Amino acid sequence: MKFSETTTRVLVAAVGIPIAVLVAFAGRWVLAAVLAALAAVTALEFYRLVEAKGIAPLRAPGALLAASFVGLAAIDPGAGPEGAGFVGLMVFATLAVASAAIWARGATGQPLLVVSATLTGAFYAGALFSFALFLRHLPDSVGARHGTMLLFAPILVTWASDTSAYFVGRAWGTRKLIPSISPGKTVQGAAGAVVGAVAVAIGCAWMLGFFPTYRMGIVQAITFGLLVSLAAQVGDLVESLFKRDGGVKDSGRLLPGHGGALDRFDSLLFTLPLGYFYFRFVVGPLGPF
Amino acid sequence: MKFSETTTRVLVAAVGIPIAVLVAFAGRWVLAAVLAALAAVTALEFYRLVEAKGIAPLRAPGALLAASFVGLAAIDPGAGPEGAGFVGLMVFATLAVASAAIWARGATGQPLLVVSATLTGAFYAGALFSFALFLRHLPDSVGARHGTMLLFAPILVTWASDTSAYFVGRAWGTRKLIPSISPGKTVQGAAGAVVGAVAVAIGCAWMLGFFPTYRMGIVQAITFGLLVSLAAQVGDLVESLFKRDGGVKDSGRLLPGHGGALDRFDSLLFTLPLGYFYFRFVVGPLGPF
Repeated sequence: MKFSETTTRVLVAAVGIPIAVLVAFAGRWVLAAVLAALAAVTALEFYRLVEAKGIAPLRAPGALLAASFVGLAAIDPGAGPEGAGFVGLMVFATLAVASAAIWARGATGQPLLVVSATLTGAFYAGALFSFALFLRHLPDSVGARHGTMLLFAPILVTWASDTSAYFVGRAWGTRKLIPSISPGKTVQGAAGAVVGAVAVAIGCAWMLGFFPTYRMGIVQAITFGLLVSLAAQVGDLVESLFKRDGGVKDSGRLLPGHGGALDRFDSLLFTLPLGYFYFRFVVGPLGPF
Repeated sequence: MKFSETTTRVLVAAVGIPIAVLVAFAGRWVLAAVLAALAAVTALEFYRLVEAKGIAPLRAPGALLAASFVGLAAIDPGAGPEGAGFVGLMVFATLAVASAAIWARGATGQPLLVVSATLTGAFYAGALFSFALFLRHLPDSVGARHGTMLLFAPILVTWASDTSAYFVGRAWGTRKLIPSISPGKTVQGAAGAVVGAVAVAIGCAWMLGFFPTYRMGIVQAITFGLLVSLAAQVGDLVESLFKRDGGVKDSGRLLPGHGGALDRFDSLLFTLPLGYFYFRFVVGPLGPF
């Protein structure tokens, strides 16, 4: 049986979303295992784009490095990024990858750009995905249900932003946003994205109101929707930019109908860190009450 | 009056070394100001090498980012790299530089490699130089004299390694080490470097014995000399590799007779972090006594 692109897309989502919720609810090592795999796949997709530019990054060490960020994050996710040893890992990786380039690439093998791309791809994928763990295990959150909700708040707002951009843009989109980078995007779609994101952010704030900590007031919820939607749209444009530079349409084929990991999770790489810092430093455990 | 290359080199060192000691002794903000300037210059030299490959990194934001690592490190240098907010800065910088590439470079401006090189150069220069501050203000060190000695231990061992490599290589060097990357280096020079480094490391251990914390035993001192010399030589090879890739002889003209910041401080970018982690996790404040 052969499904249409849209049917495939909806079927994958119908299976994928419940699994994502269960994985998030399980937390810690289960979540880390899935995130580490996603980080490695995302880094490899980044490297595939770079390879289209004639630069051959150190694929296996880079994918391992991306997964290592997630692994470190899982040791004590409540300690946040500063407690995860990311700086030590980055320092070690910088020295190790630069040294490896002496033997693996040599002076004629573009070592400057190989080292730069290997490190950047690993950090982009590995460090940014780790914020899902930090969100799920925010200190002062009360249990798995609360942590899952805190993690899904930026995810749901991001999806709301993406989805309403698509439908508003298709219905009323006339003025192109940045056609040289992403021909499909319109100003109307971008505005619709913000409206959809703010609506879902208010819904998330209502849900979070059932828990004792990290409760958002209405102004905080609106600001959250606004910021997440902006970050999601910029993250989406950045990935379009990277794909256009690499000369490909989809970054990979991880999820049928959804393209690769970079295609599906591009916005989340921007909105997960934003969500974490917003809950930790703007909302705070005690919230506005 | 025109000096020979060697005379210029010695004169610059004769002026530079006392200044370096005074700056290190002053510590904190004075040291940070000098390191921030060095980090920015080093990042710009890295970008010059990359430009020779036809990629135009975001020079000013990258240099500012490199200096920002040092600035963050100076806020509470005793807290070490994990307390300095480096991860937050890296996350913010990754998202900001990637977003800036949309407007500053566009899809035809090589954004993948521009973003990668901008971030890597800034981290390489900024984060690695910051370890001088972390060494100078190691927790449990007792005052400016001790901190300065802890900072100069890896520096002196690195210089001993470089200098004895040069003289032993010139006197007895016959077998080339890696001629495709650095034609002047010999196996005999590399061995001489280790011997010189171990000798000076033992001297440093003796000096550190006058202070109550971070005292090295003889085995720790020999290991320190060995590891620092290896890291210094690899750091030197990495920079030779980068310069050869960029097709230049000197990375810049910061110090007359010494070349640029990358030329003079290439090994230190590797040995300063090594020295910090060695004192903190191998020697430890209480040492072997």
